Amino acid sequence: MIITLKNKATKKEEKKVVDKIKSLGYLPHISRGNNVTIIGMIGEQAEKYKENFEAMDEVDHISEIEKPYKLASREFKQENTVIKLPYGIEIGGNKVPVIAGPCAIESKSVLDEIAKIVKDDGGTILRGGAFKPRSSPYAFQGLGEKGLKYIGEIGKKYKMPTISEAMSVEEVPLVAHYCDIVQIGARNVQNYDLLKACGKQKKPVLLKRGMATTIKEWLLSAEYILSQGNYNVMLCERGIRTFETATRFTLDLNAIPVVKKLTHLPVVLDPSHGIGIREHVPTMAKACLAVGADAIAMEIHPRPEEALSDGPQSLLPEQYKKLMDELKVLAQALGREI
Amino acid sequence: MIITLKNKATKKEEKKVVDKIKSLGYLPHISRGNNVTIIGMIGEQAEKYKENFEAMDEVDHISEIEKPYKLASREFKQENTVIKLPYGIEIGGNKVPVIAGPCAIESKSVLDEIAKIVKDDGGTILRGGAFKPRSSPYAFQGLGEKGLKYIGEIGKKYKMPTISEAMSVEEVPLVAHYCDIVQIGARNVQNYDLLKACGKQKKPVLLKRGMATTIKEWLLSAEYILSQGNYNVMLCERGIRTFETATRFTLDLNAIPVVKKLTHLPVVLDPSHGIGIREHVPTMAKACLAVGADAIAMEIHPRPEEALSDGPQSLLPEQYKKLMDELKVLAQALGREI
Amino acid sequence: MIITLKNKATKKEEKKVVDKIKSLGYLPHISRGNNVTIIGMIGEQAEKYKENFEAMDEVDHISEIEKPYKLASREFKQENTVIKLPYGIEIGGNKVPVIAGPCAIESKSVLDEIAKIVKDDGGTILRGGAFKPRSSPYAFQGLGEKGLKYIGEIGKKYKMPTISEAMSVEEVPLVAHYCDIVQIGARNVQNYDLLKACGKQKKPVLLKRGMATTIKEWLLSAEYILSQGNYNVMLCERGIRTFETATRFTLDLNAIPVVKKLTHLPVVLDPSHGIGIREHVPTMAKACLAVGADAIAMEIHPRPEEALSDGPQSLLPEQYKKLMDELKVLAQALGREI
Amino acid sequence: MIITLKNKATKKEEKKVVDKIKSLGYLPHISRGNNVTIIGMIGEQAEKYKENFEAMDEVDHISEIEKPYKLASREFKQENTVIKLPYGIEIGGNKVPVIAGPCAIESKSVLDEIAKIVKDDGGTILRGGAFKPRSSPYAFQGLGEKGLKYIGEIGKKYKMPTISEAMSVEEVPLVAHYCDIVQIGARNVQNYDLLKACGKQKKPVLLKRGMATTIKEWLLSAEYILSQGNYNVMLCERGIRTFETATRFTLDLNAIPVVKKLTHLPVVLDPSHGIGIREHVPTMAKACLAVGADAIAMEIHPRPEEALSDGPQSLLPEQYKKLMDELKVLAQALGREI
Repeated sequence: MIITLKNKATKKEEKKVVDKIKSLGYLPHISRGNNVTIIGMIGEQAEKYKENFEAMDEVDHISEIEKPYKLASREFKQENTVIKLPYGIEIGGNKVPVIAGPCAIESKSVLDEIAKIVKDDGGTILRGGAFKPRSSPYAFQGLGEKGLKYIGEIGKKYKMPTISEAMSVEEVPLVAHYCDIVQIGARNVQNYDLLKACGKQKKPVLLKRGMATTIKEWLLSAEYILSQGNYNVMLCERGIRTFETATRFTLDLNAIPVVKKLTHLPVVLDPSHGIGIREHVPTMAKACLAVGADAIAMEIHPRPEEALSDGPQSLLPEQYKKLMDELKVLAQALGREI
Repeated sequence: MIITLKNKATKKEEKKVVDKIKSLGYLPHISRGNNVTIIGMIGEQAEKYKENFEAMDEVDHISEIEKPYKLASREFKQENTVIKLPYGIEIGGNKVPVIAGPCAIESKSVLDEIAKIVKDDGGTILRGGAFKPRSSPYAFQGLGEKGLKYIGEIGKKYKMPTISEAMSVEEVPLVAHYCDIVQIGARNVQNYDLLKACGKQKKPVLLKRGMATTIKEWLLSAEYILSQGNYNVMLCERGIRTFETATRFTLDLNAIPVVKKLTHLPVVLDPSHGIGIREHVPTMAKACLAVGADAIAMEIHPRPEEALSDGPQSLLPEQYKKLMDELKVLAQALGREI
Repeated sequence: MIITLKNKATKKEEKKVVDKIKSLGYLPHISRGNNVTIIGMIGEQAEKYKENFEAMDEVDHISEIEKPYKLASREFKQENTVIKLPYGIEIGGNKVPVIAGPCAIESKSVLDEIAKIVKDDGGTILRGGAFKPRSSPYAFQGLGEKGLKYIGEIGKKYKMPTISEAMSVEEVPLVAHYCDIVQIGARNVQNYDLLKACGKQKKPVLLKRGMATTIKEWLLSAEYILSQGNYNVMLCERGIRTFETATRFTLDLNAIPVVKKLTHLPVVLDPSHGIGIREHVPTMAKACLAVGADAIAMEIHPRPEEALSDGPQSLLPEQYKKLMDELKVLAQALGREI
Repeated sequence: MIITLKNKATKKEEKKVVDKIKSLGYLPHISRGNNVTIIGMIGEQAEKYKENFEAMDEVDHISEIEKPYKLASREFKQENTVIKLPYGIEIGGNKVPVIAGPCAIESKSVLDEIAKIVKDDGGTILRGGAFKPRSSPYAFQGLGEKGLKYIGEIGKKYKMPTISEAMSVEEVPLVAHYCDIVQIGARNVQNYDLLKACGKQKKPVLLKRGMATTIKEWLLSAEYILSQGNYNVMLCERGIRTFETATRFTLDLNAIPVVKKLTHLPVVLDPSHGIGIREHVPTMAKACLAVGADAIAMEIHPRPEEALSDGPQSLLPEQYKKLMDELKVLAQALGREI
């Protein structure tokens, strides 16, 4: 950690900072420039004292050197984490599974109809929400546990692993009971009790990035799960909030190579939420594959105008089929497989 | 709700939309322009079908007319909501209470020391966190229930109402038991189960705006609480996330007159988090008062370099004292009272 | 244009708006809902009166229906614009030219060295800045006209069309004299005198999006050029400014399918500025191709640590060579050519 | 400047960086931590080599220590700059002048009518645009030199200094000829040729912040003007672009204390553009005063629904009068004068 003193700090001010560093058991390295003095604070986990030094009047600002997450970092584990799911599906390897399904589980029959489409055209993981985080209390809130039962049964019928979202601590064991992956949504990326609950159970966790979460904060949220003992965490970029309103969110594809350098965890991409406009989802799905996605998540619905949630961004079955064909060709050119 | 059809839509396409409007029991009003046809969908709560129409290929986009929140709106209740607290303190009236205290409750003696300062210089509500939402799992996580006990006791000692944050459904009854206001933090503004839990109990709730929450979403989150029967909700602006990194967040003071026009709920402002730099908090506190805050929340600490959280933005006692004097003069000029 | 009246507007207020619509020669279509009345203002270019109606106390807000740009829109011209350059190079067709070179022209010999690399590995357009928009007045400002001479000569030597930036009205004829494409940088996207000057000359123009320019504003800036008679305009996305600081900018790939739907103009992508980190530029270049770029612009430098500008994001020659090989394979899978 | 090496850098890699520092005539200070080595580069203006070191593969990142602007900094000049204008008006002293007028000069008679209102109710500087930066080429572009003549004459008639915007190098001498302050608009904040042209003439310059300009970039743009010899520069915050669309821009009041600490230049605030909604401008004007504005700029128009630009945010004369009365009381409470 590097401490930059206020401009033209006196020897006495410098000493106050140096003494504090020593009192905490760290080593100070002083560099005096023409106007500014900087002090390196050398030792393990110096960063945890960052705010204490920032709070000193003698200090202008702090530069962090060590990363604040450990278990999530490439320094901790060099090789990519590969998450193993039922039916031989893996996330994080050379194959890029497609996670598809409706936004919300609406009924058993509609889910069955969609699952068949997903499977027939090459999707390998079935998604569907039973607990829905809706911005309005008056919008459809999901079928709850009944929905989880449906997706569990239909996943088995079509031999696909399943994923569904948990919005609170109490819902975690329910989702983990019926599904193969527990999803944490963007709005809960810093719901720390929920993250800890996910870390204490065994099922893999998909952690969506929040709409204003920095890459550093996102990896710290993953660290919350890992630090409880569950190492099967995948990250999911689904669009950040920017000034541009022509699209629902701004899919931050820049984040993918950056995150994959910093962490060993697999990265899933969600072009459906990322752009929010059905006709443009296929184009973005191709960009997701090109940028190195370990899995691609998308919403499909045979009758989007009747969908109880996210109809505008759900692919029609024929769009999905065409896209899957294109992704297969593209994957090959990229040295990967769908 | 207004539905704009795709450019040069045919009569057949127009009919498809019109028929859907009628089938839902609404009245269509058609306006045909040179290139574009727009259809008004007239009737109560048409907006709840927004996504269904957006999902139609015939539709270019939807403009909402009715506000999606009801109980939080000025249309529902014209006069300002005034929230009554113990010791005769009110939020939402002409007096502007100052909510002050440490970021985190660190020990009973430090909290007592700070509470005395808060009270002596004119603060009327005591704040302090027992459950702390920290971005790193390795940072101090708060004293938990023990901290709540401390703040409850010390609030009574100094005759000040108290506020503390609940981060999960299970913590709501605990905070409500020991404190007078339940705080929902910025990271939980769309944690809907938590909002509902707050709505089902009786203590007033302070709902912080998330760092990327639009005003509309913020009011919808308030609606989640109101819709469960708890009408004592106050909103709190504490800075949004923008491209500017010279300050911790960007305090969105624009939001205050806008929100106060849309809703009857009181609005609290938090300049400490909003700028995140101790020496600039007093200046921003004055701006908060000038813009119409119903209460001002700030962090203070006698030894910020030892604070376990938010030291860099905590006011020193002498800064707090000076600020309170200045705020009193300013309040008078604004026709209010501190 | 749709005018939504203030909630519970009276007949008299409604009449005031209707009369104003009629007085301007337009047709009002009134739809009265339960609480809100909306009025369609029917006729050509109603949107130009938007602010006048917004300024009325009777009006709550306005929704635009017609797009404010005409010549840039798909409605005006359905087929893609293909821009023809010397040596048979085209932008906007099935082939995707690679535009490469140094950020700044540093000397004739370095530019020659780089141009040879660009050409040998399949790049077809040579870029290099002679007038450099640097945020600090103390940074290298470019070689000026001498630099333009160099790029003109070296472009001819290697038979590559050339592109360089003009920062002011006076520089436009200079750049147009020596180069084949005039570039308008992100900081000048709303420098309207400069746009008009580009519109009055004949050379094709590459218009970069500003770091906070909406898609609508960007197309309106293109309209400034088109409206002066120069139809050879290509757009260039180079990253927008968001809260994320782990990358230099956030490359907004979402914008590409959206823009290509709205306009017939070709779209160039610039992954070098878009991410700003050399090692991640190749990954992003692939995403650019997948998302439908009509050309890809990148910075290369044989000794980036000596570069006078943008060294950190400039590709090394061996990275460039490897990337070009990968892009060729990828282009084929996408049904395009490099 | 502090150079952080890549994690676990070898001695050889360290030496390469150290040698480069020495070869440039600077002194390296090395601090070796457990995993990371950092090197201080000590000497004047080390920051100008920032990109060269960032471009080295051995380097992880750079932290700047010295500020990149010199003449604009408090280190260069400690006391506040006070800009002297005709009729004894000053900006930067204890008095806070109000700059008011229409957005665009529409005709001599309307400008005269407005100027009288401005003067009568206590405004001291007359604003009005003759060259208008409009996002659409089809919108009213201003009266040009004729407009400048009008404002020059009317300013003299009412004994008020005048301000108008220059959008290009050629317009600078025109504006400087007729008016007392040359305004640079938000869209031109990084139009460096324009900044230099302003620096080469003698009239004071008001430099608006761009909608996505960081504080550092803004001060560097001011430095462009100062470095040409014109020290009479005032900064103007007028709202930044964020995700929030309920207001036209987000007025960044946080920036004021931060900027006033970094620079000696006066800071003007523009609540009209900053919020963009007439009825909320007075509230924000009070916040501007409270936060320490050295002048407040606002748009007024007697018939906003007929204004050729910015009608929705222009104050009505009676609103302006009432606001001026309130500002006078408030200024007194803040120890200032209007």
